[in-house]
Amino acid sequence: MGVASSFMSTETQNRRLDMELEQTFPASDPIPWIHELRVHEMSVTTQDKLYLDDFVVGQRFTSGTVVVNADEVKSFAARFDPQPFHLDEAAAKRSVFGGLIASGWHTAAMAMRLLVDSDLRIAGGLIGLGGEMSWPRATKPGDVLHVESEVLEVTPSRSKPDRGIVKMRNTTLNQHGEAVQVAVVNMLVPRKPA
Amino acid sequence: MGVASSFMSTETQNRRLDMELEQTFPASDPIPWIHELRVHEMSVTTQDKLYLDDFVVGQRFTSGTVVVNADEVKSFAARFDPQPFHLDEAAAKRSVFGGLIASGWHTAAMAMRLLVDSDLRIAGGLIGLGGEMSWPRATKPGDVLHVESEVLEVTPSRSKPDRGIVKMRNTTLNQHGEAVQVAVVNMLVPRKPA
Repeated sequence: MGVASSFMSTETQNRRLDMELEQTFPASDPIPWIHELRVHEMSVTTQDKLYLDDFVVGQRFTSGTVVVNADEVKSFAARFDPQPFHLDEAAAKRSVFGGLIASGWHTAAMAMRLLVDSDLRIAGGLIGLGGEMSWPRATKPGDVLHVESEVLEVTPSRSKPDRGIVKMRNTTLNQHGEAVQVAVVNMLVPRKPA
Repeated sequence: MGVASSFMSTETQNRRLDMELEQTFPASDPIPWIHELRVHEMSVTTQDKLYLDDFVVGQRFTSGTVVVNADEVKSFAARFDPQPFHLDEAAAKRSVFGGLIASGWHTAAMAMRLLVDSDLRIAGGLIGLGGEMSWPRATKPGDVLHVESEVLEVTPSRSKPDRGIVKMRNTTLNQHGEAVQVAVVNMLVPRKPA
């Protein structure tokens, strides 16, 4: 979704959702969902997968935690975001941030890992089509992050009866309960096979 | 901006921009911009930095290229997005994607590196506050990516006269000219010192 959806009517958005679903997997229909997953907070203790039919608006998920590692902050930055405030403590101290901070993309990547390891085990995997991101606060070495997720919308596809979209807000929080990343994302989710 | 801005009036958005600017750097005013930068496509050949005053709506930047490496796709995924379609060719072949694809966050990270190495050399660095992302197509090993950027809005802060926001659309394209990522981002940019 992302880019254009904000300026669109719901009808146009739904058409676009369908187009995205169409474009994303033009070669495979029905989708060969392959992963072993289990349901969270739904009184189901088996290793069931989460299908579109299992999601309801307001449903929440909480991930485990990760400690932000200074060496990884620097090595991630050296490869992907080589700016002084991500690379070197001394340079970072002289920067706008006053100290070493993680690249926003490193934060996004760590949050993704937390989600993959969490109970949000969607049949077919965690497949994001796009969304909206913000980084209200810097992520710093030593921070302990976790992700809290909430289901905002559940939208079956009208053209593809085997799938739909779950819009979620994934908020990444530090050890002080401060949001370091807020991502509202559209996830591709299969419907339960008949 | 991201999350909330799409549903807000321009006035509310501007207030929010100011709030974000305030929150992002509460400890430093004026901002100690520290980097060496140079201006692009503006008939300036010196190593000048790009300030808010240098940006105009419609201005464009083009990055260099990067070849997507299969080993990096897998190692990035092993750390940050360990799902079968990012980790292993055989498993990926059986997935919805029909072959190995890069994590969306790996694509985002590679696009960031292209921007950091490009002529978009903003005084103070490339500091994103948030934005909207989509991945219209999968990124595959062997793809040759580059980023094309366009300035969409230039907004001076009303409360902080030394800074403002440049909204850009950064489109990451593969060797076929297909967009694999579209990011509309709000960048924090300093004003030219008096």
